[in-house]
Amino acid sequence: MSATTAGRVHNFGAGPAALPVTVLERVQSEMLDYAGTGMSVMEMSHRSAAFEGIIQRTEADLRSLAGIGIEHSVLFLQGGASLQFAVAPANLRAAGASADYVLTGHWSKAALAEARKTGSTRIAASTEATGFDRVPGQAELDLDPRAAYLHFTSNNTIYGTQWSTCPEPPPGVPLACDASSDLLSRPTDVARHGLVYAGAQKNMGPAGVTVVVVRNDLLERTPGGLPALLDYRLLAGSRSLYNTPPTFAIYVVGLVLQWLIGQGGLAEAARRGEAKAALLYGVIDASGRFYRGHARPDSRSRMNVTFRLPSGSLEEAFLAEAQAEGFSGLKGHRSVGGVRASIYNGCPLDSVRALAAFMGEFRRRRG
Amino acid sequence: MSATTAGRVHNFGAGPAALPVTVLERVQSEMLDYAGTGMSVMEMSHRSAAFEGIIQRTEADLRSLAGIGIEHSVLFLQGGASLQFAVAPANLRAAGASADYVLTGHWSKAALAEARKTGSTRIAASTEATGFDRVPGQAELDLDPRAAYLHFTSNNTIYGTQWSTCPEPPPGVPLACDASSDLLSRPTDVARHGLVYAGAQKNMGPAGVTVVVVRNDLLERTPGGLPALLDYRLLAGSRSLYNTPPTFAIYVVGLVLQWLIGQGGLAEAARRGEAKAALLYGVIDASGRFYRGHARPDSRSRMNVTFRLPSGSLEEAFLAEAQAEGFSGLKGHRSVGGVRASIYNGCPLDSVRALAAFMGEFRRRRG
Repeated sequence: MSATTAGRVHNFGAGPAALPVTVLERVQSEMLDYAGTGMSVMEMSHRSAAFEGIIQRTEADLRSLAGIGIEHSVLFLQGGASLQFAVAPANLRAAGASADYVLTGHWSKAALAEARKTGSTRIAASTEATGFDRVPGQAELDLDPRAAYLHFTSNNTIYGTQWSTCPEPPPGVPLACDASSDLLSRPTDVARHGLVYAGAQKNMGPAGVTVVVVRNDLLERTPGGLPALLDYRLLAGSRSLYNTPPTFAIYVVGLVLQWLIGQGGLAEAARRGEAKAALLYGVIDASGRFYRGHARPDSRSRMNVTFRLPSGSLEEAFLAEAQAEGFSGLKGHRSVGGVRASIYNGCPLDSVRALAAFMGEFRRRRG
Repeated sequence: MSATTAGRVHNFGAGPAALPVTVLERVQSEMLDYAGTGMSVMEMSHRSAAFEGIIQRTEADLRSLAGIGIEHSVLFLQGGASLQFAVAPANLRAAGASADYVLTGHWSKAALAEARKTGSTRIAASTEATGFDRVPGQAELDLDPRAAYLHFTSNNTIYGTQWSTCPEPPPGVPLACDASSDLLSRPTDVARHGLVYAGAQKNMGPAGVTVVVVRNDLLERTPGGLPALLDYRLLAGSRSLYNTPPTFAIYVVGLVLQWLIGQGGLAEAARRGEAKAALLYGVIDASGRFYRGHARPDSRSRMNVTFRLPSGSLEEAFLAEAQAEGFSGLKGHRSVGGVRASIYNGCPLDSVRALAAFMGEFRRRRG
């Protein structure tokens, strides 16, 4: 097999996903004794000076990397983006108000379904009619000028589509973004957003921590009586330490952020991501429709490259041979089938080069 | 300093807390390649065969250790016990119904406060009048025979008290227990409970995963319209895989469970816990009131030994010298002061022996 160093596979999983080997090695080396504290980060009080140092540096690095200013609070929460689907409307949509949703795939629909349970919503646009093969253009958006917020999903993991620029909400309407699968993969204009949230397990760490960035003036909307752990205002006031946070997951996120900073920040992350995506889309486009991308070219994701082969049996052969060659996680989501190569920050260029070579070789042999 | 092997301190933290060194070493050794998968558990899809093996074995081991039968569902959730303070009433208390709470400390009060936000509650008993220095007897409980459930906190970390036997609810009223700080430290009669929940970070793993055990017939009470991630019925139906669970935290819990099984299960855990507690209470009781335990003897916790010294300056000297000798996490909770030694499953007997010796030596010198 063509696996990477030390028996590691080429991991193209859609999340939880590949992490930088140097981050894992650092975690390994600090497992019994973090920075001379005589204990693992897992064994450390969340109120200790050592952990406060970790979470404060992680927040500072995140702010620095993503350009998050003092007008936004940064929260490290639990429950995944799926919990935020309910928490965002509970905090940001006042009684009687409505929120706008752009539907570009499974996760947008799940976000809408949660918001519908407790109040009014509108669908500002949907690309479901063409199998979520693209994101809508600004002109297609039917926007409510009084909406509590305009919600969209910046990258759609299952369908392999991505917004290249954010939708533009009406004046005064905050933009709310589920950025679970592309936050920190490229520069993001957080200042334009009222809310950005993302599970860590794609581009910035392990599962178990969700980053929520919320504009401080919106915290005034949080109604009384919410469960404490779902109350943005309370959580922001306690700087994610209202109760015990997922300490170890935050620590690993911090190491990934330091790795991103060390390699040149989000502009460099974007450059690397585009180079990886270009390799795979290049093979697809040069394959004479042996490989057929699901996404329309102008909506292609730099995170998840989704494609079909001419037949189900060829797809099965492709996946089986790839697995045997040391490529992991390539099977498309059960709802759409086919092949999906997820190439988040932690997926090395060498793995993508190896996959591109395998795809070319497979087509020559079986095309 | 008298620290343990390899520069590790004697960790008496109240949680997150000491983990068995063998568990940390196992985590360390599998960091870059779990069981030949070529990836870390952190990098692994929660839908992969490898992770399904981990979560299924963890559930099976938990059921085996704690005697949890098929009439209960086991969930691995996020958000900590503090989120369950709101989720339990949302699921188990029907509209118009009331729930009974026994107040034995800070966390019971926090649980009550969350339940009050959304419906009726009663206080079945409170020991606040004497500074939460004990748990109430059965005869003191003022029980509602129609209560949705009777909630109690089995161990009170801040005050150092613990129930030696569960309260007895009226016929037909389910018992609901926040067992965050003593689950898996001793045999628990889960069959008597409708609900048991516990953050992992005391006796069974790292922060970031919360074990919820709920009797299946109670799942019928879950109302429609709850956020998906707070819906016991939905979560039980998807076996904690509705969305991405905190995979790495679950893996570490699984390793702690295997360690517990290997050392002889919960009867042996209880024996070890009692031996550790007896060492420290023995020093307290033989100290001529130099060390004064907060808890009344019949309510003493085997998890958190809380005590005061004759003066604030002696307490400061004790904590400073202990820190210098390699004892960590001994400072009492900010709300009560004094000293607290937390001696959960992962705290080695050798650490407790060393602390007992230090306490004796400090008293001889300063008493």
